[in-house]
Amino acid sequence: MTLPQLPQHAVIREVGLRDGLQSIQTVLPTQRKIDWIRAAYEAGQREIEVGSFVPARLLPQLADTAELVAFARTLPGLFVSVLVPNLKGAERAIDSGAHLMLVPLSASHAHSLANLRKTPDEVVAEVAKMRAARDAAGSKMLIEGGIGTAFGCTLQGRVEQAEVLRCMQALLDAGADRVSIADTVGYGGPGEVRELFEKARRIAGERLWCGHFHDTRGLALANVYAALETGVARFDAALAGIGGCPHAPGASGNASTEDLAFMLATMGVGTGLDIARLLALRAKVAQWLEGETLHGTLWRAGLPKTLACA
Amino acid sequence: MTLPQLPQHAVIREVGLRDGLQSIQTVLPTQRKIDWIRAAYEAGQREIEVGSFVPARLLPQLADTAELVAFARTLPGLFVSVLVPNLKGAERAIDSGAHLMLVPLSASHAHSLANLRKTPDEVVAEVAKMRAARDAAGSKMLIEGGIGTAFGCTLQGRVEQAEVLRCMQALLDAGADRVSIADTVGYGGPGEVRELFEKARRIAGERLWCGHFHDTRGLALANVYAALETGVARFDAALAGIGGCPHAPGASGNASTEDLAFMLATMGVGTGLDIARLLALRAKVAQWLEGETLHGTLWRAGLPKTLACA
Repeated sequence: MTLPQLPQHAVIREVGLRDGLQSIQTVLPTQRKIDWIRAAYEAGQREIEVGSFVPARLLPQLADTAELVAFARTLPGLFVSVLVPNLKGAERAIDSGAHLMLVPLSASHAHSLANLRKTPDEVVAEVAKMRAARDAAGSKMLIEGGIGTAFGCTLQGRVEQAEVLRCMQALLDAGADRVSIADTVGYGGPGEVRELFEKARRIAGERLWCGHFHDTRGLALANVYAALETGVARFDAALAGIGGCPHAPGASGNASTEDLAFMLATMGVGTGLDIARLLALRAKVAQWLEGETLHGTLWRAGLPKTLACA
Repeated sequence: MTLPQLPQHAVIREVGLRDGLQSIQTVLPTQRKIDWIRAAYEAGQREIEVGSFVPARLLPQLADTAELVAFARTLPGLFVSVLVPNLKGAERAIDSGAHLMLVPLSASHAHSLANLRKTPDEVVAEVAKMRAARDAAGSKMLIEGGIGTAFGCTLQGRVEQAEVLRCMQALLDAGADRVSIADTVGYGGPGEVRELFEKARRIAGERLWCGHFHDTRGLALANVYAALETGVARFDAALAGIGGCPHAPGASGNASTEDLAFMLATMGVGTGLDIARLLALRAKVAQWLEGETLHGTLWRAGLPKTLACA
C-alpha cells in the first residue's frame, strides 16, 4: 500500500481574533488585539484574519476591524484577512487595504437563511457584485468563498456533498479567487473530509485554499490530517481553540492553533511557527479572557522532550 | 492520487477499567465496576481490559481483577483482557480464565528500568517464560506484547523506530501471539504513526493487534485515523478519556471511547457500538468519579443530527 505524500509546508491561518472573539462575551480592547497580532507575528504566524466588516451593532467585539487591518499591514510579510458578509462589508474591506476577504456561504439552505438571510445562490450573486466592486476599485485583494456547514448542519441535518460542490463551482464562476470548506458545527469525520476535499480539489485545483474545522466533537485535528493527505495545506485555527458553537454551549470551538502547530511539527510539515511562543501567547490571551471557556490540550502537558528544543 | 481504503469494521477495546482507573485516586467498588462492564457490554463493547494482575499493595484500585474476570466471562461473546507485568501475574491470569493477557514492554530503556525494573530484553525473556507457563497449563489464552513509549519517552526523549521494531520481532520470537504499539505519553503524531504501523505490519502481519494512543497533546484521534489507514483495526480507548499521564498532572489520558466511537461512525466503520448508551454510561461513571478530571468532547455537544438516529 502506498500512503499519500504529505505536503512539506503548511499554513495555519489564525482566526482567533475573528471566529474566536465573535462568539465570546468579553470585548477585547483594541490595544490587546494589537498585542495579540504582534505576538502571533513574532511566533511566526503570517496569515491572520483580524476581524469582520459587519455592522458594529451586530458584533461590537469586532467593531475595530479597520484599525486592526491598518496595524497588521505594518508587519512585513503578514497576509491580512477579514470576513465580509455582503457588498457593503466588501467595500469597507477594499478601503481597508486587507489582502483577502472571506465571504461565508452556507451550503445548508436552512442555515443560510437563518444566519445570512439569503439563499446560497443569493450569496453567490453577492460575490459577483463584490468581484465587480473589487475590480472597479483597481484592488488586488483576493476574494475567498468559504463554504460552511459543508458536513451537515444543526438546523437541517444532512448536507449533500453534491450541493457543497455545486456552490463551490458557482462561487468560482461568480469570480471568487479562492474557495474553502468549513465544518462549522463539528459534524464531519476524517473519512468524509478526505472524500469531499478530493472532489473539491478536482473542481478548484490550487484555488481550493483552506480547511476550517471546528472541534465541537473532538475531530478537528483528525480532519486536518485527512485533508492534508489530499494536498490541502492551509488551515484555519484559533489560539486556545476559542470559537465555540452557539448550538452547543461550552463545546469546543475551532481547532486550537497550538495543538495544530504541534501536530504539524510531529509530522515534519514546516509552518515557521515557534510553538513555545504560541504557548506563551496563549497564556497571555487566557488572562485577557478570564472566565471564558478555553480549549486545547498541549498547553497543559507542554511540548515533548523530543520537540522542546526544535 | 489513491487514498488507502479504510477497514469496514474496527474494535474499540475498553481500557478505562485498567489504564483509566489505575491512574485515578478514587477506588471504585467492585460492584460499580461490574455495573460498568455490564453497561459497556449492553452498549455493544465486546473487548474489555478489566484489570491488572499486579500486587494489590501497588495498585489497590485494581485488587479485584480476578473477580471482574469471573463476572465478565459470564457475558456471552465478551473477550476479556487483563494486564500482567511478570510471570507471577501471568500465572494468576491463566488461572482467572481471561482470554488475553497484555504484557507491557517499554521500548525506552530508561522508562523500562524506571517502570518495570527490567530492560526490554529482560521483559522479552519473561514473555518466553509466560508462554511456557501458558502452554504447560494447556490454556488457550492469548499473549499480547504491548510495546509502550513507542514514539518517545518523558525520561529519555527520543525512541528509535528500529528499537521498537526490534522489540516487536523479539516478542514474537519469544512466543507472543499478538503485538501492539502504544504512545504511552502522547508524543506521537499521525505522520510517525502511519510510518511505524506500516513497518510493524510488515513484520507482524495480522498479529499486529492494537493501537493505543494517549491524548496527552490532543492527537489521539488523528493518530487512530492514521493507523487505521495502514490497516490496523483495533484500538484501546477509555470512557471519558481517563488515564492521565503521571508526568503531566491534569493532562488528558487515553483516547476517549465515546469520541473514538463517534469518529468511526462518521466514517461508516462498523463497531457495533450504541453511542447514545456510551454517553449515558459516561454520565454514570462521571458521577462515580466525582472530583476526578475527565476528558473527551462529544459528551458536551452530543451526537449530530445526522447520526442521532443511526
